[in-house]
Amino acid sequence: MIILNDGGVTTPEGFFAAGVACKLKKDGKKDLAILCSDSIAAAAGVFTTNVVKGHSLQVTMENIKHGYAQAVVINSGNANACVGEIGYRDAKEIAVLTSQLLKCEPEDILIGSTGVIGIPLNMPSIREGIRNAVDNLSPDGGHDAAEAIMTTDLVSKEIAVELEIQGEKVYIGGMAKGSGMIHPNLATMIAVLTTDINISKSLLDKALKEIVKYTFNRVSVDGDTSVCDMVIILANGEANNAGILQETEEYDKFKKALEFVCMYLAKKIAQDGEGATKLIEVVAEGAATEEDAYKVVSSIARSPLVKTAFFGEDANWGRIITAVGYSGAEFDPNLVDIHIGDLMVCRNGNAVNFDEDKAKEILKKREVKVHVNLKKGNCRDRIWTCDFSYDYVKINGSYRS
Amino acid sequence: MIILNDGGVTTPEGFFAAGVACKLKKDGKKDLAILCSDSIAAAAGVFTTNVVKGHSLQVTMENIKHGYAQAVVINSGNANACVGEIGYRDAKEIAVLTSQLLKCEPEDILIGSTGVIGIPLNMPSIREGIRNAVDNLSPDGGHDAAEAIMTTDLVSKEIAVELEIQGEKVYIGGMAKGSGMIHPNLATMIAVLTTDINISKSLLDKALKEIVKYTFNRVSVDGDTSVCDMVIILANGEANNAGILQETEEYDKFKKALEFVCMYLAKKIAQDGEGATKLIEVVAEGAATEEDAYKVVSSIARSPLVKTAFFGEDANWGRIITAVGYSGAEFDPNLVDIHIGDLMVCRNGNAVNFDEDKAKEILKKREVKVHVNLKKGNCRDRIWTCDFSYDYVKINGSYRS
Repeated sequence: MIILNDGGVTTPEGFFAAGVACKLKKDGKKDLAILCSDSIAAAAGVFTTNVVKGHSLQVTMENIKHGYAQAVVINSGNANACVGEIGYRDAKEIAVLTSQLLKCEPEDILIGSTGVIGIPLNMPSIREGIRNAVDNLSPDGGHDAAEAIMTTDLVSKEIAVELEIQGEKVYIGGMAKGSGMIHPNLATMIAVLTTDINISKSLLDKALKEIVKYTFNRVSVDGDTSVCDMVIILANGEANNAGILQETEEYDKFKKALEFVCMYLAKKIAQDGEGATKLIEVVAEGAATEEDAYKVVSSIARSPLVKTAFFGEDANWGRIITAVGYSGAEFDPNLVDIHIGDLMVCRNGNAVNFDEDKAKEILKKREVKVHVNLKKGNCRDRIWTCDFSYDYVKINGSYRS
Repeated sequence: MIILNDGGVTTPEGFFAAGVACKLKKDGKKDLAILCSDSIAAAAGVFTTNVVKGHSLQVTMENIKHGYAQAVVINSGNANACVGEIGYRDAKEIAVLTSQLLKCEPEDILIGSTGVIGIPLNMPSIREGIRNAVDNLSPDGGHDAAEAIMTTDLVSKEIAVELEIQGEKVYIGGMAKGSGMIHPNLATMIAVLTTDINISKSLLDKALKEIVKYTFNRVSVDGDTSVCDMVIILANGEANNAGILQETEEYDKFKKALEFVCMYLAKKIAQDGEGATKLIEVVAEGAATEEDAYKVVSSIARSPLVKTAFFGEDANWGRIITAVGYSGAEFDPNLVDIHIGDLMVCRNGNAVNFDEDKAKEILKKREVKVHVNLKKGNCRDRIWTCDFSYDYVKINGSYRS
């Protein structure tokens, strides 16, 4: 597998994209992206578990049911959520207008909206944006599209990989945006993946769902789960591989590559969490059950006290064991070991007399690992989060206005 | 009922207290409190649900089992938690030393420790502090004691009330400390209540447990539940009332007064939450079940996005409905009404075109109310929280060092 750091959603064969500005964002930045395949693609998606669902997301969930899609339209700056029937009608109109311009069916259009909740879309701007984007569709448009879906993200998030499947070159590309309201399951997170591989739609769906669980669903920025989140994949089959129709070794190879792409994007989301100065990887092992392992990593990643301590570069493991304690997982406090980086700070639930200078050195880095061993069973889990800084408060104290 | 704003734990008859400095806190502030009754008192307590429990708390949980206590010793500056066997031995020694000085049994001493986790108590300082505090016990010592239990609290929290029970004057007093790691159930919260009423220990226990559920367990500062939290009450029976032995009207009257005291202290804790600029009261009604009502208020009170929006005085109700959406409560998003103060901002799950100036005016106040109606059933709940400010990050980025 070759990692193409410059790659993105238009790296696979037959995908075109554009990102344009249509004044949904006040600052005049790009805010509407279209991605389309020149032939119909197998499509799969994973969507927010929030009971409240954005109107665009609702239309996408309907349209993806038949397992195919031709194009994806995503706007930033407005979530198209909680605005009543008009929100659903607007989403439908986006699908119809885009399908007319691209000469396909409205049911083959997937839609995403991310941004402020409760304000109807400015449809004249959206219409103009869609027309403009369709006019600008290009096999090099991936970067513009990745930019256009950003909200409070500081950097755009893209990647592509090349691999050989059934003796033929195939590509997988992806783009994603964070970066607040991020917690399993999904969040203000939108990720779009593309591939030119030939694969059955059922296997595409299976691979995506299994992978999302341990990648995008293991990112927590602030414990909030938004109403507009989705991960979708389009596979247009334009590569020359014979076709993956069963769970063969070639399927596994594809799945591993897709997992790499998802993991890369998921970590980028945590790293670019609102106000984040550090990426924090939390690993729990030795849990009695998978649920317990998840409870432990999730509780630590969600604790504002742990996250502010990391911001302050303070090896405050007392807050880590406290978060384990209220996680709901079953364990014996007298067995717990905790490492920060490779430094043991707690053994059998008690303080270890560790080297504070060494701790400072570990905590000064941009990536920090926390490792908790419950020594009770064989289950493990992992989650990525970030620290909580002044900037998180600043960004979120005035986002709407 | 008369509210005595100057009152505290020594307002009821026969209670003495002291608060001294014994160098557990680096800044030389008071850090050790002793409260004692001149006769043995009926005692009841509610303790942290965290699986990890501080060593002092463990001793208190053992000692309170027989339902009586003579004195309470609380130190701040060190949580006496996660330090191994020495922590338990130290807690036991505190009980023995105090009991010798007060001429009672070690089993009649309750102990609380709050502060940093993972560092053994400085016992020479503690011993000196205990001797010094015992020497200074005074019927006017309540204020000093309330000061000595503070950690990151900005203000001490005390109250007393006077009421007539069975034709006689009785008093209830209380003190509490917050102010981080606060979330149901209990937290870095310690509250000590005193009363001179004559009441059976079983009714005292029943009243406390029922009241704590809707007062101290309805305060959330940051969603963290600490390992050292407790609410205890001592009733020494020195008032002249005949005695409350059944759930009579007089019992209800006492319970209402005790509830007032607990509510007052609980709200003070939220108001003085770390870095807080506002007290936020979140009410959910129209829930199908009590659990759902609790899930809704708890989810809103825990959301960093909601809390930063309040800090920014931004009527961002989209974040409120989002938090309701992922709370786990069952509801129909198309029925939800949301008010901020008396201003409706969301009707039937959709935006209301509200007056932004009016919203600003409401949000500028020191106390803000959020009201969510699910219109699905008859259950309601209420929680107090505070906003998330730069200062929360500042305080918690460098607490240990």
